Amino acid sequence: MQYDEQAYTDLGWAKIDTGRPARTGAAEAVYAAGKTPEQVVAALRALRESHPGRVAVATRCDPACVERITAAFGEEAWCDSGVAAIGGFPEPGAGPLAVVCAGTSDLPVAREAEIVARANGVDAHLVADVGVAGLHRLLDAVPRLREAACVIVVAGMDGALPSVLAGLVAAPVVAVPTSVGYGAAFGGLAPLLTMLNSCSPGVTVVNIDNGFGAAMAAVRILGVKVER
Amino acid sequence: MQYDEQAYTDLGWAKIDTGRPARTGAAEAVYAAGKTPEQVVAALRALRESHPGRVAVATRCDPACVERITAAFGEEAWCDSGVAAIGGFPEPGAGPLAVVCAGTSDLPVAREAEIVARANGVDAHLVADVGVAGLHRLLDAVPRLREAACVIVVAGMDGALPSVLAGLVAAPVVAVPTSVGYGAAFGGLAPLLTMLNSCSPGVTVVNIDNGFGAAMAAVRILGVKVER
Amino acid sequence: MQYDEQAYTDLGWAKIDTGRPARTGAAEAVYAAGKTPEQVVAALRALRESHPGRVAVATRCDPACVERITAAFGEEAWCDSGVAAIGGFPEPGAGPLAVVCAGTSDLPVAREAEIVARANGVDAHLVADVGVAGLHRLLDAVPRLREAACVIVVAGMDGALPSVLAGLVAAPVVAVPTSVGYGAAFGGLAPLLTMLNSCSPGVTVVNIDNGFGAAMAAVRILGVKVER
Amino acid sequence: MQYDEQAYTDLGWAKIDTGRPARTGAAEAVYAAGKTPEQVVAALRALRESHPGRVAVATRCDPACVERITAAFGEEAWCDSGVAAIGGFPEPGAGPLAVVCAGTSDLPVAREAEIVARANGVDAHLVADVGVAGLHRLLDAVPRLREAACVIVVAGMDGALPSVLAGLVAAPVVAVPTSVGYGAAFGGLAPLLTMLNSCSPGVTVVNIDNGFGAAMAAVRILGVKVER
Amino acid sequence: MQYDEQAYTDLGWAKIDTGRPARTGAAEAVYAAGKTPEQVVAALRALRESHPGRVAVATRCDPACVERITAAFGEEAWCDSGVAAIGGFPEPGAGPLAVVCAGTSDLPVAREAEIVARANGVDAHLVADVGVAGLHRLLDAVPRLREAACVIVVAGMDGALPSVLAGLVAAPVVAVPTSVGYGAAFGGLAPLLTMLNSCSPGVTVVNIDNGFGAAMAAVRILGVKVER
Amino acid sequence: MQYDEQAYTDLGWAKIDTGRPARTGAAEAVYAAGKTPEQVVAALRALRESHPGRVAVATRCDPACVERITAAFGEEAWCDSGVAAIGGFPEPGAGPLAVVCAGTSDLPVAREAEIVARANGVDAHLVADVGVAGLHRLLDAVPRLREAACVIVVAGMDGALPSVLAGLVAAPVVAVPTSVGYGAAFGGLAPLLTMLNSCSPGVTVVNIDNGFGAAMAAVRILGVKVER
Amino acid sequence: MQYDEQAYTDLGWAKIDTGRPARTGAAEAVYAAGKTPEQVVAALRALRESHPGRVAVATRCDPACVERITAAFGEEAWCDSGVAAIGGFPEPGAGPLAVVCAGTSDLPVAREAEIVARANGVDAHLVADVGVAGLHRLLDAVPRLREAACVIVVAGMDGALPSVLAGLVAAPVVAVPTSVGYGAAFGGLAPLLTMLNSCSPGVTVVNIDNGFGAAMAAVRILGVKVER
Amino acid sequence: MQYDEQAYTDLGWAKIDTGRPARTGAAEAVYAAGKTPEQVVAALRALRESHPGRVAVATRCDPACVERITAAFGEEAWCDSGVAAIGGFPEPGAGPLAVVCAGTSDLPVAREAEIVARANGVDAHLVADVGVAGLHRLLDAVPRLREAACVIVVAGMDGALPSVLAGLVAAPVVAVPTSVGYGAAFGGLAPLLTMLNSCSPGVTVVNIDNGFGAAMAAVRILGVKVER
Repeated sequence: MQYDEQAYTDLGWAKIDTGRPARTGAAEAVYAAGKTPEQVVAALRALRESHPGRVAVATRCDPACVERITAAFGEEAWCDSGVAAIGGFPEPGAGPLAVVCAGTSDLPVAREAEIVARANGVDAHLVADVGVAGLHRLLDAVPRLREAACVIVVAGMDGALPSVLAGLVAAPVVAVPTSVGYGAAFGGLAPLLTMLNSCSPGVTVVNIDNGFGAAMAAVRILGVKVER
Repeated sequence: MQYDEQAYTDLGWAKIDTGRPARTGAAEAVYAAGKTPEQVVAALRALRESHPGRVAVATRCDPACVERITAAFGEEAWCDSGVAAIGGFPEPGAGPLAVVCAGTSDLPVAREAEIVARANGVDAHLVADVGVAGLHRLLDAVPRLREAACVIVVAGMDGALPSVLAGLVAAPVVAVPTSVGYGAAFGGLAPLLTMLNSCSPGVTVVNIDNGFGAAMAAVRILGVKVER
Repeated sequence: MQYDEQAYTDLGWAKIDTGRPARTGAAEAVYAAGKTPEQVVAALRALRESHPGRVAVATRCDPACVERITAAFGEEAWCDSGVAAIGGFPEPGAGPLAVVCAGTSDLPVAREAEIVARANGVDAHLVADVGVAGLHRLLDAVPRLREAACVIVVAGMDGALPSVLAGLVAAPVVAVPTSVGYGAAFGGLAPLLTMLNSCSPGVTVVNIDNGFGAAMAAVRILGVKVER
Repeated sequence: MQYDEQAYTDLGWAKIDTGRPARTGAAEAVYAAGKTPEQVVAALRALRESHPGRVAVATRCDPACVERITAAFGEEAWCDSGVAAIGGFPEPGAGPLAVVCAGTSDLPVAREAEIVARANGVDAHLVADVGVAGLHRLLDAVPRLREAACVIVVAGMDGALPSVLAGLVAAPVVAVPTSVGYGAAFGGLAPLLTMLNSCSPGVTVVNIDNGFGAAMAAVRILGVKVER
Repeated sequence: MQYDEQAYTDLGWAKIDTGRPARTGAAEAVYAAGKTPEQVVAALRALRESHPGRVAVATRCDPACVERITAAFGEEAWCDSGVAAIGGFPEPGAGPLAVVCAGTSDLPVAREAEIVARANGVDAHLVADVGVAGLHRLLDAVPRLREAACVIVVAGMDGALPSVLAGLVAAPVVAVPTSVGYGAAFGGLAPLLTMLNSCSPGVTVVNIDNGFGAAMAAVRILGVKVER
Repeated sequence: MQYDEQAYTDLGWAKIDTGRPARTGAAEAVYAAGKTPEQVVAALRALRESHPGRVAVATRCDPACVERITAAFGEEAWCDSGVAAIGGFPEPGAGPLAVVCAGTSDLPVAREAEIVARANGVDAHLVADVGVAGLHRLLDAVPRLREAACVIVVAGMDGALPSVLAGLVAAPVVAVPTSVGYGAAFGGLAPLLTMLNSCSPGVTVVNIDNGFGAAMAAVRILGVKVER
Repeated sequence: MQYDEQAYTDLGWAKIDTGRPARTGAAEAVYAAGKTPEQVVAALRALRESHPGRVAVATRCDPACVERITAAFGEEAWCDSGVAAIGGFPEPGAGPLAVVCAGTSDLPVAREAEIVARANGVDAHLVADVGVAGLHRLLDAVPRLREAACVIVVAGMDGALPSVLAGLVAAPVVAVPTSVGYGAAFGGLAPLLTMLNSCSPGVTVVNIDNGFGAAMAAVRILGVKVER
Repeated sequence: MQYDEQAYTDLGWAKIDTGRPARTGAAEAVYAAGKTPEQVVAALRALRESHPGRVAVATRCDPACVERITAAFGEEAWCDSGVAAIGGFPEPGAGPLAVVCAGTSDLPVAREAEIVARANGVDAHLVADVGVAGLHRLLDAVPRLREAACVIVVAGMDGALPSVLAGLVAAPVVAVPTSVGYGAAFGGLAPLLTMLNSCSPGVTVVNIDNGFGAAMAAVRILGVKVER
């Protein structure tokens, strides 16, 4: 199958940007929130058709959507933590990527990041519950984290983990604030601001709860080459 | 001189609350911002007259105010970092209090806290520039910090230091956010929210740049007994 | 059972910080919000195993979680106001701590603070509904409040109570804003700002609705010594 | 001189609403901020011409503006605290109005309220520095405050005074937040929110630092009848 | 029955401020939100017992609470728009008070204001749907509004009505912002700010959706004398 | 049927502004949110009666409301995307209007704009899913967009589309931010600010999710003349 | 001189978009804030050279910048209210445009709008000081405003004028909030929100103090045809 | 000279983190804002002494600070755009890095990024004034931008450039919002939110005006190896 930078599949209500891999290296993913299960399936199908050699991904799928996807794609579909991946994960072609999370409540966001990275050919693994309130847990993990070519740090509440970690490793640190916490976390605003103000230079930040975005940043950073 | 809980000195434009030591253990201090130097001097005089055995304190004194205070009180006056103390510091009766700051730009606020604490009979000392970007500087200081009966932590930007430190010591930790930082610090809002959302339980927070307030909290915590 | 400062129990999805009492004097508590009942029970079990002499605490338990905890721990479990305490309350070793609330709608947060403090060995008691709109109710309570070694003040709406109370007592005042109120309370922002701007010096503040955090601050302030 | 509800004096760059007294009972005042001294004088002149029996008022006059007004109106002009009043104060026809302020830094705003009220025929007086940190100062003033037909309360920082005072008097309480305070006062946002959330029912609020607006509300409340 | 300024009825979880009428002229009302129906009934009973000559009022009662109140008080209870009034409305002793609302979606808040005012002896009436988009509807109502001794203006969205109306009447104008509107109304923040910034001098403002508070301000302004 | 600028139909709880077409060129529409289905039907009926030659429109109708409308108006009623139009769409008298949306999640808002425009006599059509992440989709559409006399651009998340599009066409661009996106979109605040700060001059903005408002702005811009 | 849609003049530090008139109908203007006077002059020169038949415009010029422009362009330069126009105003080719302002403090922003509109061939005129506090001033102006093909409304403080005016005219209403007002105007946020929430449908909004942007929107709306 | 990960130079008021290159690959830089020129020089000296083979960098130097640095370091010092670099730039060891800015007002921030990157061994170059209002300027630059291994995008106002650019290139995109713009840019909040909400996946964001931080992120991403 042939396609180029300017390609898209027009579904009327959507124009699937099938030229994206040629331009940016990674395929469009389907953001399921606010779409009907039928729309999600149709979009996944369009992606599968234009890039048969790539896994097609949807994020933020609720159970009804997951059910519909499974019905539509059968064995090809793999679903976890709201992410659906159709077509089988590629062999990792870059990494390692460490996805670190501060607390157990941050796990769903971290897991979204991990799965999306894997679907894009990254060798990703999770390091859970190393928040700064018990620093020794983090320090124990540093040797392993230093082997990572890129680190995603997921944290809610005070969002302090990226600042501490970026002082200990040389790899790029992509920080993801989460909406976890008491009232003055204001839905993730508190860790978002913390991370933007990191005193360790070189931390970059993505949107609140946006594990997907962090994974896609890692894909760019690691310069993954997936067969197209 | 005699006075009681319900005492105050009425200057017309001000009612100096001279009963405050009897009620709360510490004397009123003069917040010089927004007052004329003459008003500051008059208020300090009223404090000196009702509590001759206590040092009278004004904070946020600009140079013109300092000059006027020095002219009025001569040798009795001691001024530094915008704080004026009239009447000589008492012997420390409680402590030790560690005033820790994350960066050198946080020093003026930390110094305000240290001086006000000393004026209220606390054995206070400063630990500078132990921000989390270079964690070993902080870890080096932990043994000394563990000797403190109370710790004030002053930090701008990400405001992450109190979370980390409170996981390492058992003493009360009073956090002071500062207005230091790039645009998204929003005048201290970022570290304020970080500190309120500390993942280490037991951190309490005062207003932005409010070294004075942190010191007064420490005075309450340490239960200082000064001669009245 | 032996353990040290750097200890933790690794459950894979969580690393229970069992070294925390050795470092900070108080054990980790389980924040149940965002965890499955199974995770909460597993974490409580890990805490019980590493510190058999301490009560293990979880906060923000919903009814399903409470049910699961009761099933798991039987008679050992005691649950109220979303707090679960496993293993029996210790004899009070410090205090007294007064937990004061401004209105009846603030009671759940105040109760969380009271229970957590008791679980950590503090002699705590509640003083309800002494908001400043009827000042005589508060003034009646002052003699009793002056006997407290520490005061937690819980208030929503205008959050004015800590300012008034801190002018009447010498003990440390820890203020907890609540999310109670009409629209312009903005989920607790209004009393949070009020408390941070208290005109009575020495008030410190914790997160919105964070009774747990206030109790843990009191534990630090009172320097409780619990058998470890 | 004759005029009616729909009258105005057209100066080209301004349309002085000379019908306002007939409609609302009080004359337009000139907000000098953002106007040239010449514009302020011209507007005051238009007011004087259409209502010779009323004092003409300008607020927020800087020194250059005051100088120009004095030059233009000579003995007729009376200026204080940024307020200029041209034509002599009327005999008080309503009141008494108590203008209460919490701290000495709130005095300029309180003074603006007092002068504007007097210029509109209200018997107004100032009660200074009765903030809630020293409650006895306020309680001492209560008997006098209960004689007032209306109370304006001016406060910065925590803005707690209106809540306390409104629980002690039956008169209408108009609250004015000021921009006085440390960083988390956010230019008056903190006391503004406090006052809007007052737990004492019946408190109403005007804009930050808006002593003028509070005075005008009092004029409406007191139903002053000035000769037109 | 006798009682004085410092009276209260202690229910343990609540201290009903029965001295409030003697101090402020109006009885405490029960804010039902966040209370159990049992608590609401108990509080209403305490109010009835201490002031048998006054109607006892609860606001923000949900249907379950209304049902419980009706069961408890029978014919004495009258409920509408979330307000419960026990004991019969008094003869109006002051007014008239006009409660004006800009749109039909603002009606519930306006109705709360009207009922609470009536329960406190005010002769109140509603003027609905006179928003400024069709100015002639408002201008038609002006003659009637000019007969009012006080005007409450309830408006969401742009909140422009109080500015316009206050330029047309001489009576006190109390503005109530509502949470009605599209996204950028931010839950009532938009009309709240509009009303605080009214270009017509003398408008005062209460909390978002706080019809109760506006009514209580009107009660103070109108100086109602109810038998106690 | 006759009516004039100052007409309205008084329903007691509402005053339908039937003079609006004579003044502004377009009829009042019913905002169903916060109204009962009965109120919506009554308001639509009043509109139908005063302007039999115009379609009567209600927006934000939930399914229960739609059902009630259908029952009331039968074949005359046409409902889609929360908009109900009674009386048949007019022949287009102005346009073309392009309603462009950045993503598929923005479609409901775009559809509201399209239908309301059509009900007011505008020749409107939808261009879906041309967000800037795949610029070629937009560039493909430019020739068609240049034929439009007015362009409405609906976008959530970064809200970047209006800036880009307004640099490519000469027609008026009305931008509608939507509440679609991850946490830091803050309910549409992010695209709202983006659009207000457009670097392409001449973009104007309406409220978040306010497709109705954008359509009404287009009606004004296109100067539609509908039979009245 | 020849140029096309894709043209620009590359100055190294700037790329003047000389293709803009061909694409959007209006030339690029120079935003002088944050540029050196030399940069402003160089940019104006590049505009003059590529479009000799058009006036070249710079906005937000401070006095030093105006001086440098006058020195560079001599008689060709015309400067007022921070706007510099080089090359002579064109004959008006569209309109009339009414630029209405609520108060005299809004005049500079209104004047910026008026001059920029004239420079782009619009027949614009100013209507000053018709704020809603004295509604009769506005009602007097309505007949003239109804002759306008487009209305720009400039207002600070409550920003209520566009809501009222849009209910009285059929032309497009472009609203400009200004940063004029007391503290709770928050630098223009208050009128910005008011205007976005206008209850009169069809109002659109531009950035705070952005008279330039409003004028450019009017240019699009009026479809001006200037010689290119 | 020898040093290790845990090294620091203690200046009393500062602890220069000389172990940082060993841990994170890049040396500490001096943030001059809020420091005296003497402090800046002393810190630069400490950096020079511990890493003689590296250039020592200070950012945000005002003219007085630059003067003092030049006096202290003579020919070794090179200063531009508030950045001082002492010791000569290294040969580029990684890249290329494109620093793109949307408007000419964003140049100072872009220049800070470029210089800091060069000082850390990156082959960086600037691409100025390619904002999305004239898209052809950006499209012209795409071929060159596709050669970059990393792209920093600096933009104020709408901050739309990163979204557009990230849809056209595969390299990592680090976005820097600037504080440039009209009132509703709120000091950079608008472009910050735009960038965090980028519809092109994989954009990461740093603090407002923080060219330094973007450069340090690029250094991590490019994995520069500088002689230590």
